[in-house]
Amino acid sequence: EIVEAIAGALGEGPLKGRRILVTSGPTHEPIDPVRYIANRSSGAQGTAIGAALAALGAEVIFVTGPADVPPPEGVQVVRVESAREMEAAVQAALPVDAGVFAAAVADWRVAQASDRKLKKTREGLPVFELAENPDILAGVSQMGEGRPGLVVGFAAETDDVIPHATAKRARKGCDWIVANDVSPATGIMGGTENAVVLITGEGAESWPRMGKADVARALAARIAAELETS
Amino acid sequence: EIVEAIAGALGEGPLKGRRILVTSGPTHEPIDPVRYIANRSSGAQGTAIGAALAALGAEVIFVTGPADVPPPEGVQVVRVESAREMEAAVQAALPVDAGVFAAAVADWRVAQASDRKLKKTREGLPVFELAENPDILAGVSQMGEGRPGLVVGFAAETDDVIPHATAKRARKGCDWIVANDVSPATGIMGGTENAVVLITGEGAESWPRMGKADVARALAARIAAELETS
Repeated sequence: EIVEAIAGALGEGPLKGRRILVTSGPTHEPIDPVRYIANRSSGAQGTAIGAALAALGAEVIFVTGPADVPPPEGVQVVRVESAREMEAAVQAALPVDAGVFAAAVADWRVAQASDRKLKKTREGLPVFELAENPDILAGVSQMGEGRPGLVVGFAAETDDVIPHATAKRARKGCDWIVANDVSPATGIMGGTENAVVLITGEGAESWPRMGKADVARALAARIAAELETS
Repeated sequence: EIVEAIAGALGEGPLKGRRILVTSGPTHEPIDPVRYIANRSSGAQGTAIGAALAALGAEVIFVTGPADVPPPEGVQVVRVESAREMEAAVQAALPVDAGVFAAAVADWRVAQASDRKLKKTREGLPVFELAENPDILAGVSQMGEGRPGLVVGFAAETDDVIPHATAKRARKGCDWIVANDVSPATGIMGGTENAVVLITGEGAESWPRMGKADVARALAARIAAELETS
């Protein structure tokens, strides 16, 4: 592991010369200057993946929302807040050899964020009209020219993980989906471990529960093998 | 400052024997297992106030939402997520000599948080029906028996700070309001400095812009003086 990190820092390793985009963390969608809608994501898994790819020698562009954990060393960090900012940063990072979309991007934003703090009024509760955010994973997966050779999406599910994630892979058009069960009972969200299922064109592989750094290293090795044969 | 902290740790100082409640940080209101509505609050000002009160010898009960900064040393920490949890923790902390309500409590929550992750559907966007959260500051301010001798609220405003904060003091029934301008241009939200206006029964005092720790020390000294004469 230390040997890998040193090799990565020296620009050696199986991903030498590969440019890989990683998105990580939550997005925050403003309601007004003091309120926002957020996704529960510490950024821990995406950060570990960025570090593991860099350790294998990749040039990593790490696009991160406001995460709880600091970004990894040895990557190019691009900080964003909202889904629309993340989409712009992703577009600016292309072309890449592979894209790993680990961020928990908000599906919706408030259509008209207010410039002023919303007040309690006698007329009652405010209404938030929602608008759909750009689907960053689908957008990159369905690119014609310039599509990354490997596009990896993530699926945080609370039930029926494999069917939901398999359907998501088909719907988005990505190559792989890394799926997990984030039900509160699993303790995965915000925790140090993860239990993922990798959905590829060949089917579903359930990986044993392990530390997020180990999941990241296994995924990075798998990406390196895939890019080698492609 | 060091002398004060040592005196506080030894249970000495002008607030010796006083029990003071401080709320701090944002609240998070769940939408579903992975999404929530949040308020932008780092918890920095509330944390500094908790520390400053403890340094003057007070027994501090520090009720905090999910803040960016760790709670101060030397206080009794109660961690909560939502406004309703914060209200319960506040009620459980009573009686106190003074209450300082620095938390940025969400005014609204989603009426029916979903147990399952909401999915994008073809029927379109989900609708979040909102419900009003308990007004913790008003509830404590308007208590009959058992009301703290001094109740201090906060007002984060983006315009017309003094009129809005003065109206808030009257509406809530608290003794003081610490008001500030959190417009993005001020850089106060998430920053290290604060420029507050203290609204009391006598009127509005604008304090010079200073570090959040200095604001906290000035407020703690003011609270000590008030409790001494009461």
